[in-house]
Amino acid sequence: MSYRAPLADFHFLFETLVGLDQVRATDMFSEATEDMTQAILSEAGKLCEEVIAPVNRAGDEHHSTLENGRVRAAPGYAEAYSAIAEGGWVNVSGPVEHGGMGLPVALQTAINDMMSSACLSLQLNPLLTQGQIEALNAHASDELKDLYLPKLISGEWSGTMNLTEAGAGSDVGALVTRAERNDDGTYAVTGQKIFITWGDCDFVENVCHLVLARLPDGAPGTKGISLFLVPRNLPDDNGTPGLANGVKVVSLESKLGIHGSPTCVMEFDGARGWLVGEEHRGMAAMFTMMNNARLGVAAQGIGLAEAATQHAVAYAMERKQGKVGGTGTIVEHADVRRMLMTMKSETFAARAISLANAVAIDMGHATGDADWKARAALLTPISKAYGTDIGHEVASLGVQVHGGMGYIEETGAAQYLRDVRITQIYEGTNGIQAMDLVARKMMDGGAAAYALLDEVETNAEAARGTLPDLAKPMFNAAENFREVTEWLVEQDMQDRFAGCVPYLRAFARVLGAHYHLMAAMAEGGTGPRTSLATFHIKRLLPEHEGLIAQVREGAEGLYTMSVEDLQAV
Amino acid sequence: MSYRAPLADFHFLFETLVGLDQVRATDMFSEATEDMTQAILSEAGKLCEEVIAPVNRAGDEHHSTLENGRVRAAPGYAEAYSAIAEGGWVNVSGPVEHGGMGLPVALQTAINDMMSSACLSLQLNPLLTQGQIEALNAHASDELKDLYLPKLISGEWSGTMNLTEAGAGSDVGALVTRAERNDDGTYAVTGQKIFITWGDCDFVENVCHLVLARLPDGAPGTKGISLFLVPRNLPDDNGTPGLANGVKVVSLESKLGIHGSPTCVMEFDGARGWLVGEEHRGMAAMFTMMNNARLGVAAQGIGLAEAATQHAVAYAMERKQGKVGGTGTIVEHADVRRMLMTMKSETFAARAISLANAVAIDMGHATGDADWKARAALLTPISKAYGTDIGHEVASLGVQVHGGMGYIEETGAAQYLRDVRITQIYEGTNGIQAMDLVARKMMDGGAAAYALLDEVETNAEAARGTLPDLAKPMFNAAENFREVTEWLVEQDMQDRFAGCVPYLRAFARVLGAHYHLMAAMAEGGTGPRTSLATFHIKRLLPEHEGLIAQVREGAEGLYTMSVEDLQAV
Repeated sequence: MSYRAPLADFHFLFETLVGLDQVRATDMFSEATEDMTQAILSEAGKLCEEVIAPVNRAGDEHHSTLENGRVRAAPGYAEAYSAIAEGGWVNVSGPVEHGGMGLPVALQTAINDMMSSACLSLQLNPLLTQGQIEALNAHASDELKDLYLPKLISGEWSGTMNLTEAGAGSDVGALVTRAERNDDGTYAVTGQKIFITWGDCDFVENVCHLVLARLPDGAPGTKGISLFLVPRNLPDDNGTPGLANGVKVVSLESKLGIHGSPTCVMEFDGARGWLVGEEHRGMAAMFTMMNNARLGVAAQGIGLAEAATQHAVAYAMERKQGKVGGTGTIVEHADVRRMLMTMKSETFAARAISLANAVAIDMGHATGDADWKARAALLTPISKAYGTDIGHEVASLGVQVHGGMGYIEETGAAQYLRDVRITQIYEGTNGIQAMDLVARKMMDGGAAAYALLDEVETNAEAARGTLPDLAKPMFNAAENFREVTEWLVEQDMQDRFAGCVPYLRAFARVLGAHYHLMAAMAEGGTGPRTSLATFHIKRLLPEHEGLIAQVREGAEGLYTMSVEDLQAV
Repeated sequence: MSYRAPLADFHFLFETLVGLDQVRATDMFSEATEDMTQAILSEAGKLCEEVIAPVNRAGDEHHSTLENGRVRAAPGYAEAYSAIAEGGWVNVSGPVEHGGMGLPVALQTAINDMMSSACLSLQLNPLLTQGQIEALNAHASDELKDLYLPKLISGEWSGTMNLTEAGAGSDVGALVTRAERNDDGTYAVTGQKIFITWGDCDFVENVCHLVLARLPDGAPGTKGISLFLVPRNLPDDNGTPGLANGVKVVSLESKLGIHGSPTCVMEFDGARGWLVGEEHRGMAAMFTMMNNARLGVAAQGIGLAEAATQHAVAYAMERKQGKVGGTGTIVEHADVRRMLMTMKSETFAARAISLANAVAIDMGHATGDADWKARAALLTPISKAYGTDIGHEVASLGVQVHGGMGYIEETGAAQYLRDVRITQIYEGTNGIQAMDLVARKMMDGGAAAYALLDEVETNAEAARGTLPDLAKPMFNAAENFREVTEWLVEQDMQDRFAGCVPYLRAFARVLGAHYHLMAAMAEGGTGPRTSLATFHIKRLLPEHEGLIAQVREGAEGLYTMSVEDLQAV
């Protein structure tokens, strides 16, 4: 069984559901016609199917290794990466003025989704480069942009993000890596960073590190942090990587999954760096990078859900188990069917939300409209947390569909489960995403959320004639969710945080069901999308009530049990 | 952080919640006094803490290997096993007349729980032996019992279960391994079995295989299957293992977890076997073994949940992350607290159900009472599926509490997640458990379920005075669940199967909340158990409504989408 790019789904989602037509109606993205979109996705899909997916198992079996201080990638990765770079697939939304195609983030998201299905470990490399391109484009000097962006966009060089330190994870402000001003306008960066994905790479000419560090006069906390670009090899006047910089990989982590992706401990020892943005304003620049990286990680979760689903459907159609069911393969068994329908409908819901998120980013970018920007900001933590949570749940169902075979590594189902588990953690744990949703993203008093719920309710109303059995629970769910949102925005932060994870999940339930309903309406209320929508709305949407019950409990009950009693056995 | 045996929890559960006093009031178990119970659990707990838990990581890092056809176990396993065997801990509920202690299954379950926390891979070895002892004791000839049981109970020999074949997993009746009658009353067994846990072992004198095979005149399907005891080495007249039998390990599987436990492909080539029970009645004998093995697997899931919870609480209390919370460690963060409370309350609920199940088994055994037997039968699939599902969920939350460190293997959180995942699959997948619950276990029209719900409602009524805020939702949930049960037993099998997994989960929600409520009542409605009960009943119990909504949908919506559309991308 090999991966097949879900082109029909992308086409339907873009053209019928999430409104890519609005994006191409802008000056900025007028070239992204329907034909062009389809051609791009079809080509990218082919690359994923034929070149990238075939190296996925090898990267799991042959972990990337550290040899003489340099990372050696898994067999086949260099060749697959070459195909990505040569095809221009590292970053299709990269800026035109530096050699990019300037396509919508929506297309980039679909490509990231497919490439993650094919091989998550390898896809992490261009994903990190995408974030770096975006941060440099938004914050770096023209000189840095001219030198670095063409190399990054072409994939000749790759990019990394260096935030985390042993004592500074979710709390970035606690970092101790320091930077000192050199006489020539550059900086000397010293410190140790951990969890650095693709901190070195043997199939690119140079690796460029974006590093958060504190200048001697930087305040404590996040306000005193600056951002530096630190290349592994110092470019000479022609931009050719030359002398080694003071940066090295100390060790690689042994991880649950993404074995093909080297997770490095990086040592910076007076490494020469260039300031990106202003001194002490590094967090702002980093946030640019992180926000879109979060949507990128959502696409990873969804891509792995897609791959796990295809893999499980294929197995279920081939696995004979005569006794319980009818035609002789387990796909006929009711509980297997329930699992497959869950997998398929969750993947669709998460993908719709993430693509709607991408469209909002593109619209904000193209129009500068504050409402689009607010929508994009609101949807980002939902896309990330829900996309990766269902990635894990769907991959786990995929193992379950395989029965005992699912636990055997050579089947491949277990790899999806191990690989996807990181997506719930990195780029801000899903708990951090949920906190972002109920705090920062609700600073508008819920306005962006209500605007979205208005649309859900309007569409549910419009569906009452054709699909009353789905429209009614949809409308009621949106109303329930509106009420808990009204309640939430009146609470203090501690009470919001206490229920933020179930709140985010309930939000995703409402939005996902809404896209399913719209999909069913688009096919006239009968057909496979209606079947999937019916499954989702009748069986999964009711979960939102239990989630809302959790939200409304607030924080108090979380602290009545003492820490000593938590520890007691 | 090292494992600590939850002795206080066991004591409370046995003496206050699940009624071990009823068990010791029977003639059969009169020796299991409160003092004796505590002494036994305390000794076993000490062994788990000090001897078994220390080998857990080594067994993950150094997979068991196959060398010259023999399994070589992980470093330290032989020594830890010796301590288990020498202490008499292989099977404390083994029959007295063959050297066992004849203690209640309830105590065995608690010991299995602790030993699984300490090292699942090693614990599987005695667990399989326990199943074999039970099957032989119930079905084998006196001659076989006299020869094998003392060796198995003492742990000198170990036992395995050989059911699965490449083409016969959940559908055992499809097996093709054959047996032929020898002239001397023994049988010649030929065929290949897969997924055989501890199919060989280098720290016992002999490995005894219970093998399902079909005689030449055996009917197709499960009705033509017989059960044979096939020792690796043929015992001589003194019972000393001698000549090698025609059985060998062909290969070991590479698995997601339980790396220390060898999962073998076994080849039987005319191996000499002894009939256990009657010809063609092997499934009945195997079911004896499987039912208690299912409770044993429940204890595994719960044991891993316990270990993962302790591990996560310790990390959360030590991990400094100043910014978001108050006192400086992440245990103060609301979302971390929510995760830890979920972990702790789910573990307690699952453990209470499994120990109530064990008590029902003991009571059925000691009194022969049909109601107790029906209760034991009803609770078994719930214990197994819920205990292992929460095992996985809790271990995954444990990874999440650790953040990025959770994805690094040396932390140990990931091992719990990988190890526990098999428990949802083996001994009948959790889907099979749920089918068993709604089909076989509802052949009484729901009588056993209603009897349990009557108790829940009576106790909820009794709690109305002291804990009205918990008693009321508890009573209502039981009523909701009673109604869906009344609906379910009227449906055909396909409609029952369609919702069997959410039905089982909803049942576990009601029962788990009930034990929490009783725990809160037992401490007078205030204290840590009340805090945990409040958390569970207010935040987790509401989930049952969404689950019931799924159940009531029946099968129809699962099949409106064609197999072709499931496959479509």
